[in-house]
Amino acid sequence: MLHVIERRNFPASSVKLLASARSAGKTFKFRRQELAVHTLGVNSFEDIDLAFFSAGAAISLEYAPIAVQSGAIVIDNSSAHRMQAEVPLVVPEINGGDVAAHRGIIANPNCTTAIALMALYPLHRKFRVTRIFAASYQAVSGAGALAMEELRQQSKSMISGRAIEREVFPHQIAFNVIPQVDSFLDSGYTKEELKLQNEARRIMHLPSFKASVTCVRVPVFRAHCVAVNAEFQERVTLAEARQAISSFRGIELRDDPTDSIYPMPVNYAGEDVCAVGRLRIDSALENGLAFWVCGDQLLKGAALNAVQIAELL
Amino acid sequence: MLHVIERRNFPASSVKLLASARSAGKTFKFRRQELAVHTLGVNSFEDIDLAFFSAGAAISLEYAPIAVQSGAIVIDNSSAHRMQAEVPLVVPEINGGDVAAHRGIIANPNCTTAIALMALYPLHRKFRVTRIFAASYQAVSGAGALAMEELRQQSKSMISGRAIEREVFPHQIAFNVIPQVDSFLDSGYTKEELKLQNEARRIMHLPSFKASVTCVRVPVFRAHCVAVNAEFQERVTLAEARQAISSFRGIELRDDPTDSIYPMPVNYAGEDVCAVGRLRIDSALENGLAFWVCGDQLLKGAALNAVQIAELL
Repeated sequence: MLHVIERRNFPASSVKLLASARSAGKTFKFRRQELAVHTLGVNSFEDIDLAFFSAGAAISLEYAPIAVQSGAIVIDNSSAHRMQAEVPLVVPEINGGDVAAHRGIIANPNCTTAIALMALYPLHRKFRVTRIFAASYQAVSGAGALAMEELRQQSKSMISGRAIEREVFPHQIAFNVIPQVDSFLDSGYTKEELKLQNEARRIMHLPSFKASVTCVRVPVFRAHCVAVNAEFQERVTLAEARQAISSFRGIELRDDPTDSIYPMPVNYAGEDVCAVGRLRIDSALENGLAFWVCGDQLLKGAALNAVQIAELL
Repeated sequence: MLHVIERRNFPASSVKLLASARSAGKTFKFRRQELAVHTLGVNSFEDIDLAFFSAGAAISLEYAPIAVQSGAIVIDNSSAHRMQAEVPLVVPEINGGDVAAHRGIIANPNCTTAIALMALYPLHRKFRVTRIFAASYQAVSGAGALAMEELRQQSKSMISGRAIEREVFPHQIAFNVIPQVDSFLDSGYTKEELKLQNEARRIMHLPSFKASVTCVRVPVFRAHCVAVNAEFQERVTLAEARQAISSFRGIELRDDPTDSIYPMPVNYAGEDVCAVGRLRIDSALENGLAFWVCGDQLLKGAALNAVQIAELL
């Protein structure tokens, strides 16, 4: 988030870093200065105009109202406020206008949701989406820095024939795939899988939208991919679909199968822009498109989107 | 294939290994003997009752008719004969009876197809499938031994910060996913993606079956996974679906989300049995089930299925 604020020249006259007592005193480089981390407390938000929260739902639930009371606007990266009717849930390219209705808190969507919608929304604008079937290929960075280290260490151990150690993920992630991201609901879907449907409904203003999703963790460091089959109300053509994607800000077409060109994590890790490839008329839907979307979940799926919301404000 | 023949005590009085001149003279251990590889030629099939072909479509097209003429029955692992009406395409648990109609050649299905159908067919028998949406997570072993070595070498290089080398796959496979398996058709689907629909039609005797698939290579050494959304004609219940899977030979339920139990490549590499998990009522289909299936594509997806066909004969 600091990198994004700096890189985009966000007009912050000063920046204050807050974390738990455990991290207090650590420093981070920002605009060629060393910023020290302060301990989060009830008085932390005096004189703060904008507060970016990215410390999990429990911290957001406790401290976002305190920050708002102190006069700050909160942009919350956690899932804590995303489904609250009075909290706008915003992807700036899609529903930036919703920001205006905020009452102090604005929610940043789930990473897979944000990335999938960057491809789906321009197609929806053109053809009116009704439902999607999707399967994700999610990088370990979505689970944090320790998860990235776990993939590195496990891969090293496997290659050297040593036993692997496991802490972050419920199973080995190196040279494996895990069909679970977040915890399970009674329906058999995970919370992560349901987020794509429920958050998409709010972001696209489409309460009847349906999504049946399988979220899978793959041994990739950074950047998520999603394979999507989307059904629309109106007749689709490839030319119009390509045009709809190409003319939308924040997403690009990378789609030339004959030369094996399509988006992959190696291309989009570290990139602001998301990308669509494998765009084709769906063979099992009446008015359907199948496509593959890829984006860096630390950027469009998290920090970039949050800073874009701040820019709107 | 040799391992499977030996392990299952297939009643072969003798086994002859055939390959290109390049491999002639190499030896393989079989039943505690060393078997030498002979060079494939037009006279190779004299006194051979059963010939397993696994050397690509071109070799199968040229030599399978020669083997048949010499009196052998050919079990072909390549895609060469799979769509020929007079050639049975067989998964023994599903359409073993089709073997009887052979005229010398029997085809072994595509690996992803065989594994996906082991889960889909018992559900189809109960509920009548109409179409599926699927996304695959395919191990590198499907592309051969060199592909496995490429994943190992690239992973090693990446972890040590060295440049990677690439030969088998069109892009880096270590810590990446590649949304392409096999070559592209005009429709935008790959051949691999279309196989699942077309081969499933023949194996399930269901010419109207539709499948819209995205096939993706993932950095896993062995065992494929497929995320499936399946639509049925009849009303589905979870209890009946679980019962249908449990009572079918060759597939098992591994499905206890509350304890993070579901099939993964680490569990099923080297296993004859395939497995289904993440079974749930599909949230975006009228009569639908979503599930996750996993199986070793060198076994059920190739050698095991071929030897099972031989056992039927």
